[in-house]
Amino acid sequence: MTDFQRADGRDLDQLRSVRITRNFTTNPAGSVLVEFGNTRVMCTASVEQGVPRFKKDSGEGWLTAEYAMLPSATHDRMPRESMKGKVKGRTHEISRLIGRSLRAAVDLSALGENTIQLDCDVLQADGGTRTASITGAYVALADAIAVLKEQGVVPGEPLLQPIAAVSVGMVEGNVCLDLPYEEDSRAEVDLNVVMQESGNFVEVQGTGENGLFGRDELNAMLDVAQKGCVELIAAQRAALGI
Amino acid sequence: MTDFQRADGRDLDQLRSVRITRNFTTNPAGSVLVEFGNTRVMCTASVEQGVPRFKKDSGEGWLTAEYAMLPSATHDRMPRESMKGKVKGRTHEISRLIGRSLRAAVDLSALGENTIQLDCDVLQADGGTRTASITGAYVALADAIAVLKEQGVVPGEPLLQPIAAVSVGMVEGNVCLDLPYEEDSRAEVDLNVVMQESGNFVEVQGTGENGLFGRDELNAMLDVAQKGCVELIAAQRAALGI
Amino acid sequence: MTDFQRADGRDLDQLRSVRITRNFTTNPAGSVLVEFGNTRVMCTASVEQGVPRFKKDSGEGWLTAEYAMLPSATHDRMPRESMKGKVKGRTHEISRLIGRSLRAAVDLSALGENTIQLDCDVLQADGGTRTASITGAYVALADAIAVLKEQGVVPGEPLLQPIAAVSVGMVEGNVCLDLPYEEDSRAEVDLNVVMQESGNFVEVQGTGENGLFGRDELNAMLDVAQKGCVELIAAQRAALGI
Amino acid sequence: MTDFQRADGRDLDQLRSVRITRNFTTNPAGSVLVEFGNTRVMCTASVEQGVPRFKKDSGEGWLTAEYAMLPSATHDRMPRESMKGKVKGRTHEISRLIGRSLRAAVDLSALGENTIQLDCDVLQADGGTRTASITGAYVALADAIAVLKEQGVVPGEPLLQPIAAVSVGMVEGNVCLDLPYEEDSRAEVDLNVVMQESGNFVEVQGTGENGLFGRDELNAMLDVAQKGCVELIAAQRAALGI
Amino acid sequence: MTDFQRADGRDLDQLRSVRITRNFTTNPAGSVLVEFGNTRVMCTASVEQGVPRFKKDSGEGWLTAEYAMLPSATHDRMPRESMKGKVKGRTHEISRLIGRSLRAAVDLSALGENTIQLDCDVLQADGGTRTASITGAYVALADAIAVLKEQGVVPGEPLLQPIAAVSVGMVEGNVCLDLPYEEDSRAEVDLNVVMQESGNFVEVQGTGENGLFGRDELNAMLDVAQKGCVELIAAQRAALGI
Amino acid sequence: MTDFQRADGRDLDQLRSVRITRNFTTNPAGSVLVEFGNTRVMCTASVEQGVPRFKKDSGEGWLTAEYAMLPSATHDRMPRESMKGKVKGRTHEISRLIGRSLRAAVDLSALGENTIQLDCDVLQADGGTRTASITGAYVALADAIAVLKEQGVVPGEPLLQPIAAVSVGMVEGNVCLDLPYEEDSRAEVDLNVVMQESGNFVEVQGTGENGLFGRDELNAMLDVAQKGCVELIAAQRAALGI
Repeated sequence: MTDFQRADGRDLDQLRSVRITRNFTTNPAGSVLVEFGNTRVMCTASVEQGVPRFKKDSGEGWLTAEYAMLPSATHDRMPRESMKGKVKGRTHEISRLIGRSLRAAVDLSALGENTIQLDCDVLQADGGTRTASITGAYVALADAIAVLKEQGVVPGEPLLQPIAAVSVGMVEGNVCLDLPYEEDSRAEVDLNVVMQESGNFVEVQGTGENGLFGRDELNAMLDVAQKGCVELIAAQRAALGI
Repeated sequence: MTDFQRADGRDLDQLRSVRITRNFTTNPAGSVLVEFGNTRVMCTASVEQGVPRFKKDSGEGWLTAEYAMLPSATHDRMPRESMKGKVKGRTHEISRLIGRSLRAAVDLSALGENTIQLDCDVLQADGGTRTASITGAYVALADAIAVLKEQGVVPGEPLLQPIAAVSVGMVEGNVCLDLPYEEDSRAEVDLNVVMQESGNFVEVQGTGENGLFGRDELNAMLDVAQKGCVELIAAQRAALGI
Repeated sequence: MTDFQRADGRDLDQLRSVRITRNFTTNPAGSVLVEFGNTRVMCTASVEQGVPRFKKDSGEGWLTAEYAMLPSATHDRMPRESMKGKVKGRTHEISRLIGRSLRAAVDLSALGENTIQLDCDVLQADGGTRTASITGAYVALADAIAVLKEQGVVPGEPLLQPIAAVSVGMVEGNVCLDLPYEEDSRAEVDLNVVMQESGNFVEVQGTGENGLFGRDELNAMLDVAQKGCVELIAAQRAALGI
Repeated sequence: MTDFQRADGRDLDQLRSVRITRNFTTNPAGSVLVEFGNTRVMCTASVEQGVPRFKKDSGEGWLTAEYAMLPSATHDRMPRESMKGKVKGRTHEISRLIGRSLRAAVDLSALGENTIQLDCDVLQADGGTRTASITGAYVALADAIAVLKEQGVVPGEPLLQPIAAVSVGMVEGNVCLDLPYEEDSRAEVDLNVVMQESGNFVEVQGTGENGLFGRDELNAMLDVAQKGCVELIAAQRAALGI
Repeated sequence: MTDFQRADGRDLDQLRSVRITRNFTTNPAGSVLVEFGNTRVMCTASVEQGVPRFKKDSGEGWLTAEYAMLPSATHDRMPRESMKGKVKGRTHEISRLIGRSLRAAVDLSALGENTIQLDCDVLQADGGTRTASITGAYVALADAIAVLKEQGVVPGEPLLQPIAAVSVGMVEGNVCLDLPYEEDSRAEVDLNVVMQESGNFVEVQGTGENGLFGRDELNAMLDVAQKGCVELIAAQRAALGI
Repeated sequence: MTDFQRADGRDLDQLRSVRITRNFTTNPAGSVLVEFGNTRVMCTASVEQGVPRFKKDSGEGWLTAEYAMLPSATHDRMPRESMKGKVKGRTHEISRLIGRSLRAAVDLSALGENTIQLDCDVLQADGGTRTASITGAYVALADAIAVLKEQGVVPGEPLLQPIAAVSVGMVEGNVCLDLPYEEDSRAEVDLNVVMQESGNFVEVQGTGENGLFGRDELNAMLDVAQKGCVELIAAQRAALGI
């Protein structure tokens, strides 16, 4: 293991270069371009008064998310889901993960009966699109909530502590942080972690893609994931100036 | 916490009554009815010679899975997905989980260019349908592989060690094993674990549905999950006589 | 014709072994497993207050039905309709037949503005799935109406006389009752009859699959169908204890 | 019953005025406008060399049919099925009936590996659209087969004896032939019969829409249906000059 | 260019024979069969009280249009869009063109909160189906508005001046009016013009299918299109007797 | 008219600020961000060896295009077409326009049997998204063809002269170039022009959205459109350095 070198020269527990650009577009209440190395995702937060039927008269708001890849985001172009008339299972799965994760960052009671719709559209994919999406979406969410507060339509302070997400994997037996596509595609184990600054988890998803993993390996991966999330939250705070 | 009582009187780390009935129907190569308490899932494994295009001429086989709920499986009837023309994200997500998990229980090279299609159809839902599905599907898979071997169409021994799955949750701060719907719907944290007999993980999915969770809580839940999976694998072995 | 032997040794006008199991599952108001030989169908009746828009303020209730095959019900697995995004014409046709037939067994005025949804899901298919569905659905309907009556939400006595359904076919020139798949697939003529105990018909559908049929043959088939339906209604009465 | 008068003054066992116009359009091999009173259906038969996969190398041809209503065919405009993205069960059911019925009028072996596609598009609906479709489709089929024979691509004589279809209903207890919409909508019983000139049946479908029916009533309806079909076959023969 | 002869012997700036048949069917408020040579389109206008949500309480009415080809309208049968579950882009595009064009012929304020639905169903296609549709739809619209006026449900005079549409193309360098399929398929440039009697345009769509076109050519095509539209409007006036 | 002022202070015949950024993303062969003022579209050109079935063995290549709006591109978020399972008619119409237009900029014979797929995804919409798409797509196309030439897989020089597109509209009676959303939504007439440097047209689409337009107005709009396209082609040439 001493000889293992990452293709991009990073340390095993080092994030790719992270950039968070607010106000990337002007129409949505929050609009962020998030970059984890070559992965680039446009995360927007749109706000709407009112809530879906199942939340009506609950006094609470709602937050939902949709994730998608532009067809030319990947190395080989993928068919456009709207034209196929079918949304892939992977797309649904990630949309649901983003929605669940960001609901942990918002107090729905304090939001009042307003709805926040997150859209995470991958412009360029190089691994870690779901973790970049979650990380960027928090910043878009913060901006959207600021808009709602300015409009005076939220009864409380809906924004909770920052959450961020990162991937960790076992590659040739090494615990590597923030995998690009090249590493992700050959990793033995893949772990995605969504975490609050406190170190508490929102979501932990570990998958033995090409091999099982023991408790020790899980612990080693969680340690590195926690380190990564702390750094990402620092980047979120820097971007938001909070 | 000392006062916490489970509605069905079980110990915190006790499984519901588990029943595995082989040869539940006769047409598929493997057909199993698995019951975790009131949750009942029909798990079948159908075999077909040949593989999907992306595996052609690879010398390897393929395994895929589909999960679905009968419309009347739940307390309130749910619309039939075929009639709505839309498969829910949850359904896709669970189908993908089952497929990934069971591929960890089969050696695709030893399977040769044959395809195994798992179908997990929930007849009655009371929490833990995905974990029951995975646990039952292993037994159906074993029966299907036995059929393929009798037919002499597999080049090796494709069946790997048993895997089983179980849910664990934090309910009012207590780590509870194998949640029925009533507990699942109010759990703070929900963890699904897919494990091999060795204690190694195939998949770990923890979600803070109504609250975050720390490393200590994760560890406590994993301990209980491992206990549960070991017992489920014993039930699989008993059913298969291996 | 004197030499004709049915593969399963039955007399020409003999039903397969019929089993009707009530309370097969617990969530729907009525839940029945019906078996005609190896054909097994789960028939459920779910109840809901209110009616579809076209019945609103009519003072009448409504009953509708959906039929489906589990993908592994047949000898060769069939693609799942929800995943294909298309419901087959055959499925629609049988769903409509079941709905029409069972509406003849319920007094919609006496039901009040309540809706009964029947679901007939074929677990194992060996011919006669539509006739088994209708026969089992009557029992599930009876149980569901009993639930509604206990709830005190129906203004009258909605349940009418039992109806049952059976198939008859011409196989090598012989009139055979209750065809299994093996006979059905090579029958010259196929007749499905839905009948009340009185001998009156709800539905008669005769098809010359591989040949035409004359009035004499139709009459011979109807005679045998009436005999079969009378026996099936006896089984329904026995199951319901009425 | 002596006082019963049909709204259009017809005798109980009298057909509406029937018109069969060949060569209604010029692109398909067969194109017929069939009119049963105010019901008008454009029936076309298109021919194509080759057969669907399940018939490949069978030496036999294939015939299939699609039925549809133009959205403005009915008194109140109906939504266009293509725009809704859903084909109604009724449409599927009638398409299947037409296909089955017309396959009884063609010798698939003598057709060779050619496919005939029937399209029955209802321009104006006034009851009996399915029976008019079948009756007109036979004439379009005959013309299409003549084209194939001229092209020299059929090995034998694929066209069998004429078949025609008609509806009969019980209206206020009277057996009425060939129901227009006004009668059809209030009939107690509805019977559709597809028949060959010989009097043998291709298909018999009787439905107790608003009441059951006994053997006597069925027999009375079949007598009238047979009379109607014989007259329709005479009209087909006249149109075709055979 | 002096030697160029049109296959059907027409002058370059001559329309095909135009026929407009009112009351082609009886159910819709307006029903017109329009024929441009061998192109035949059934244009209907259905009326409904009320408007879509986005027009509610606007005091204005709405008009929308759907265009479709019957599957056997073309030389080679085309798959039915309802059965494919997908409407082709070309169909959408023409539906939108017809709707936009005919909205220029109706005063939505004077219509009041009523909706007119146009359906243009091509029975036989030989080029120019969209221009025939628009031309015929105006006549159906006029008849439908007359019905609404008789019913006393429109507050004003919604029908504006006639509009008609025609195609022009460059074929082997010649400006040809009203192209049949044979010319259309090999035209270098294709121009569709929707025009009012005044000579003012509702829509001008020119496409260099197989070559670009300059201002001079555009002007030459517009001159001929204007001549054609004037003649078509005369035919509309003759049909309507206005 | 002398008092008319554009909201953004531009002259009537002045383009918005145009920016063309090549290599906006790295995976597709050509990737361009084009900006017309606040309208921003990501235009990519992906290349693939081989052609669709209808071009097989023609020796020619193919080019096709898809246009889409990100859901948050507009002021009010629009539902995602993939999630609705329906592509809007407007989307189809613009995709087809882009494909037709760009095929006029490529010599399909010189391309050989290769396919170029253009994707125009609108990140931010402020009017003129289709014209910006076409203008940007030419640059992406040029880059993609350069890649194909480097790969040595094209038999000739497929890239033809630049084409560009621009919108012109009549706003309060004034001919305005390159309309932003605010002007577009209240324009009386809307004209989109696709043009080659020579001044020859690929496509001319004029629509009287809120009023008709005469020959003089059309000519005035075409003059301004030609001026705008010449300037856009200069921007394309500057971006490409040709």
